[in-house]
Amino acid sequence: MKFDTKILNKLSVGNKKLTARIISLVESENDLAIDILKEIFKKSGNAYRIGITGPPGAGKSTLTNQITKLLLSQNKSVAIIAVDPTSPFSGGALLGDRVRMNDIGMLDNVYIRSIATRGSLGGLSTKTIDIADVLDAAGFDFVIFETVGVGQSELDIAKIADTTIVTLVPESGDSIQAMKAGLMEIADIFVLNKSDRPEADKAFNSLQTTLHLQNVSQNNWNPPILKTKALLNEGVTELVEKIIEHRNFCFENITCAKKRKEYLKERIIDIIELTLRKRIVASNSQLIDTSILDVNSRELSPYSLAEKILNNIKF
Amino acid sequence: MKFDTKILNKLSVGNKKLTARIISLVESENDLAIDILKEIFKKSGNAYRIGITGPPGAGKSTLTNQITKLLLSQNKSVAIIAVDPTSPFSGGALLGDRVRMNDIGMLDNVYIRSIATRGSLGGLSTKTIDIADVLDAAGFDFVIFETVGVGQSELDIAKIADTTIVTLVPESGDSIQAMKAGLMEIADIFVLNKSDRPEADKAFNSLQTTLHLQNVSQNNWNPPILKTKALLNEGVTELVEKIIEHRNFCFENITCAKKRKEYLKERIIDIIELTLRKRIVASNSQLIDTSILDVNSRELSPYSLAEKILNNIKF
Repeated sequence: MKFDTKILNKLSVGNKKLTARIISLVESENDLAIDILKEIFKKSGNAYRIGITGPPGAGKSTLTNQITKLLLSQNKSVAIIAVDPTSPFSGGALLGDRVRMNDIGMLDNVYIRSIATRGSLGGLSTKTIDIADVLDAAGFDFVIFETVGVGQSELDIAKIADTTIVTLVPESGDSIQAMKAGLMEIADIFVLNKSDRPEADKAFNSLQTTLHLQNVSQNNWNPPILKTKALLNEGVTELVEKIIEHRNFCFENITCAKKRKEYLKERIIDIIELTLRKRIVASNSQLIDTSILDVNSRELSPYSLAEKILNNIKF
Repeated sequence: MKFDTKILNKLSVGNKKLTARIISLVESENDLAIDILKEIFKKSGNAYRIGITGPPGAGKSTLTNQITKLLLSQNKSVAIIAVDPTSPFSGGALLGDRVRMNDIGMLDNVYIRSIATRGSLGGLSTKTIDIADVLDAAGFDFVIFETVGVGQSELDIAKIADTTIVTLVPESGDSIQAMKAGLMEIADIFVLNKSDRPEADKAFNSLQTTLHLQNVSQNNWNPPILKTKALLNEGVTELVEKIIEHRNFCFENITCAKKRKEYLKERIIDIIELTLRKRIVASNSQLIDTSILDVNSRELSPYSLAEKILNNIKF
């Protein structure tokens, strides 16, 4: 394929077509993708990364929309990455989200991208972060990762986000579950959305008590709880102010820098691991194919065969 | 640690204490664990592996209970592995399950084990299958994997199960979502549980129509839809009969053998990958630590550093 990496200089917030093309190339996972990612990386690191997670139906997309509109009104550019772990039992949700997102998707200074991660090896991190790098290098001020919190995805998002927002709703009783399941470890800001619902005050108080009791503090940052009504655009100004406050805190302290460095380490190891997996399969497929009969008949254990192959790999 | 692998000869369905101890050792991921797993593997391969998945609240645990009781009445032994991907937003569900399971957990010929997989590297497969091997080697006739279908867990379970049961409930509208999200690719048997609910007939027909239209067939096996009321123990006899029917089909055709072989291959590569990851971290931590500053300042890309490390690994 002919591709001049000089074209990457034309990558910008305004050039949606080129952005889309570069992302497609990056997703293709061939050698060209690696070349592009190396170039892209040089220009990245300036976008502020926000993670928004929560249960299905908590209003994450509406909230993302409203935050985006507010940031746009402040002359900021926003890229949204909707990460879809596609639970088969909530498969339809994100489709609806995408339709709702369309009202901002056409605006200048906004770019929206959905990624399906179900069934992908190595989880969502590598692919998602590659795309974030492209958008970062294009010059977007903010990259928002939005994902439904199922299983693993919210942990991955929290790793790559500078500010992680956990969105809850009053009636679901999620607040207490969230506390139990260690969501406090990932939330920099809690949002209690749909706070006009009858149960809202009760949910707010219970959340606050739990936070207080557990004395949660992320490196001296006390995660606040904000009430919003995203559909009515209420509470969104306060939320964006709180995000900026956390950003300032995060950069003044070493929290953000440290976290970003930690994640870079993990990312490097992830890249190595994925590459090695491909190489192992490529260079041992014959050995595995012939030995698998012995494994299948229980004469050889998977661990013994793995050892045999590992012995041929020299560090 | 002193451990004589001869003790593994004493592993049996009746020896719950030893079984628990071996599983703990296997989970510890040290060298002893590998030695045990190699020994254990020789005796494994005889248990029939059933996967049960579905959305939260579909009654998977009750169904597992009832299937287990029926199999016990046929003088079979049953091990249950409850795989918990622990969505933070459904964190409490499995706890309740475990309480419910206690009424069979104390019986002879039953062994129940829960595994939390959230945050674990390499997903659930390696650990889960190691434990399944121990139970298989102990002589259990059936190993049932039960997991809530969120994100990735149901795909992993389907890979290691000989028969995969997808449990749905009438009112959730899951049936159509399930169709969309490719659950048909993993289901050998569909169960429509809580089939006394008003919407049951409609859901059944819609599921049947979709299956028929899409002409789903797993290597000439047409996944049936069974109606159950697990709480009332209705439809369970038919379900167990269908499982046995699928088992016979699976062994008469090469489906099961082929699938087991395919999975063994993947498992070997998973083991190699996890081991390599540890080795990479161990033997490159200094290089990564010193280079990370250059990566952080954007002078070096993660891909370039990964390449550098990969170049030192020889196949």
